[in-house]
Amino acid sequence: MKRTEADLIVRNAAEVVTCAGGTERPKRGREMAEIGLIRDGAVAAKDGVIVAVGKTSDVMEQVAIGWDTRVVNAGGRVVLPGLVDPHTHVVFAGSREYELEMRIEGRGYLEILAAGGGILDTVRATREAGLAELIAAAGKYLQEMLAQGTTTAEAKSGYGLTIEDEVKMLEAVRRLNMVQPVELVPTFLGAHAIPAEYRTNPDGYVDLVVEEMLPVVARRGLAEFCDVFCEEGVFSVEQTRRILLKAKELGLKLKVHADEMAPLGGAELAAELGATSADHLMAVSGKGIGDLARSDTVAVLLPATTFCLMGESYAPARRMIEQGVAVALATDFNPGSSPVNSLQVVMGLACRQLKMRPAEVITAVTINAAHAVGRAAAVGSLEVGKKADMVIFDAPNHLYLMYRFGTNLVETVIKNGRVVIGG
Amino acid sequence: MKRTEADLIVRNAAEVVTCAGGTERPKRGREMAEIGLIRDGAVAAKDGVIVAVGKTSDVMEQVAIGWDTRVVNAGGRVVLPGLVDPHTHVVFAGSREYELEMRIEGRGYLEILAAGGGILDTVRATREAGLAELIAAAGKYLQEMLAQGTTTAEAKSGYGLTIEDEVKMLEAVRRLNMVQPVELVPTFLGAHAIPAEYRTNPDGYVDLVVEEMLPVVARRGLAEFCDVFCEEGVFSVEQTRRILLKAKELGLKLKVHADEMAPLGGAELAAELGATSADHLMAVSGKGIGDLARSDTVAVLLPATTFCLMGESYAPARRMIEQGVAVALATDFNPGSSPVNSLQVVMGLACRQLKMRPAEVITAVTINAAHAVGRAAAVGSLEVGKKADMVIFDAPNHLYLMYRFGTNLVETVIKNGRVVIGG
Ligand SMILES: [Zn+2]
Ligand SMILES: [Zn+2]
Repeated sequence: MKRTEADLIVRNAAEVVTCAGGTERPKRGREMAEIGLIRDGAVAAKDGVIVAVGKTSDVMEQVAIGWDTRVVNAGGRVVLPGLVDPHTHVVFAGSREYELEMRIEGRGYLEILAAGGGILDTVRATREAGLAELIAAAGKYLQEMLAQGTTTAEAKSGYGLTIEDEVKMLEAVRRLNMVQPVELVPTFLGAHAIPAEYRTNPDGYVDLVVEEMLPVVARRGLAEFCDVFCEEGVFSVEQTRRILLKAKELGLKLKVHADEMAPLGGAELAAELGATSADHLMAVSGKGIGDLARSDTVAVLLPATTFCLMGESYAPARRMIEQGVAVALATDFNPGSSPVNSLQVVMGLACRQLKMRPAEVITAVTINAAHAVGRAAAVGSLEVGKKADMVIFDAPNHLYLMYRFGTNLVETVIKNGRVVIGG
Repeated sequence: MKRTEADLIVRNAAEVVTCAGGTERPKRGREMAEIGLIRDGAVAAKDGVIVAVGKTSDVMEQVAIGWDTRVVNAGGRVVLPGLVDPHTHVVFAGSREYELEMRIEGRGYLEILAAGGGILDTVRATREAGLAELIAAAGKYLQEMLAQGTTTAEAKSGYGLTIEDEVKMLEAVRRLNMVQPVELVPTFLGAHAIPAEYRTNPDGYVDLVVEEMLPVVARRGLAEFCDVFCEEGVFSVEQTRRILLKAKELGLKLKVHADEMAPLGGAELAAELGATSADHLMAVSGKGIGDLARSDTVAVLLPATTFCLMGESYAPARRMIEQGVAVALATDFNPGSSPVNSLQVVMGLACRQLKMRPAEVITAVTINAAHAVGRAAAVGSLEVGKKADMVIFDAPNHLYLMYRFGTNLVETVIKNGRVVIGG
């Protein structure tokens, strides 16, 4: 038998958590707890693609090493697929730390927004920023995310709210994909807020999104997804439907910021339109959960947002999992409601605030998160033929990752078969 | 005017947060929000001691530099005193990640304890561990803490529960003080739990603590503080009083694990005995708050413990501050109820769960925390004559530290005038 020559081998891991078996469809219900654990495991790759996964002894029999093979000893540590963060607003200018005291005083998101602060402040700063400035700021955050284990992330526009500023944000995402290792999946979120200049004419802004922005974004191939912030006081279900139908017609896949504060029916709409994901869902209705369970739409939960908004009502994760919804987790990293960009922190929050089990949480930040960004064929699990994206955590087992809340346990990050952090 | 020659200068900081003005007595009430902010600030040190603090331009006029002066440019960043963690159980063997799933299922601390798990599992592992093993494990955690900004920490015994194993733990603390930079303040906590062999004779164990352990610990100078876990099902108020009175007689300073689950009167006892700190206080009574406010006892709050225990009832921090209690914050780092060793995470939790203001939080992890470990004369603020313990955070201002929850923002840590992390 001819052995494949590997150029990267990670071996002797206390546990290799493969997350295998969910490439065709996202995992749901009890499948979410199946994480494909291999004790004393190894992963071998060639040209950035996984060529063998299994017990260290088995992998060593399947592959050969050459002079240039990088062999990483993961002795006593845990290997996971590179983490996938399926909902971020990582491109923005400015920061909003001054809102923290307002929140401590009990002022709410919509209250800050109504006062002309909140998101519109970030819109102002992002409009003023040049492309290079946006790339530099996001590049720094992406480096933090990479060092915390994220190898693939979704990145939304939505702080420009004019054609040129939305294009500028998506152009920043495109260029960031060329200059740093975290693979970004671009989402057009022109319908993130009503800009100040359309305050009295929100439907006029929807016209702009549908008739001008979407065609430009689609023609220039700047986004894979279109997303809408469907919420009371932002975009109604009917406005959301109109935008998403146009996006679908133009070949974009769909996402919805759904039922975050009020049960408007965003989840139902996402399921109806075959959206790839419905996100937030803190206020989702029983019908919404049922609709998601019967669909292939992934529910992307964002517990760091509830935590940072100091809310009480987390998304009903247990009910969703028990009813068969495919659940993923994301940071929602943004300068307002979630200045958290560590998926490890989100994993710890998911156990403690959403009562998700550790294995379910791991599925939710790997293969199910990959489905939520349309990348399940390439990433999200350690299986032969997928990209060699891996994280080695300084942890004796996978439970430890969620147990040791708040300290970054990443030791080594491998993206496309190349060591990019540690090692 | 003769200039002092400095061997370390940190300059051009966007903000130097001095936390000055609380060396004599801990800050309370409105004083807690006074953090002594200097914009465009600098700190100079000589032989590990601060010789100048002020505007960069002023400091530059006061000090001279020599060939060996280390000049650190903190341009655009924030400088704080080295953080002080006044309540940790950092010395232990084993880990208890398997309890996470039990907690997610809703089982409580006392329930896990009653089942023979919990703390007694750590006692078993710690008794079995040799001194070198304890030092290696704690050394790794202390390195994580240092990298997250902690330069001084309290360290308790309490997982030995025999004379020789308690001495072994305190001996580990003594040796750790010689081999790594985090300065440890040793606390004897023989009365942490009733060991299995005394389950039917708890008073017999109190006799052992009072008549045998305390005299040995005091004679050998192994601890500065004596602490007792005063709680229903653990040590009663009367048992606690007996132990602490003996400790006081032997010259030890006092701490109490007080009113964590039930309002037993631990806070009142701490105030009555002149304890240096009363810790936990989630269930403190109104009288307990009043007694603390009229005393010099610092209330050490541990929000990461409530968070990790998935509890609802955080300590009433706002009420304490408003009534004039001096409040500090700590991680409570331990393998069971708080596997969190990042004070930055505790700071973020304190804002969001305790509704403490950012400036109050900074006071609580610096000068007030220094009071809680009897080190206010030496650390906890950036003032001439104090130790040059500093942290440079990659943050444009002090609010940003608590805003950016979950990502370690430490760039450089300086202990005794020496750069020990980054730089
Ligand atoms: Zn969002
Ligand atoms: Zn404790």
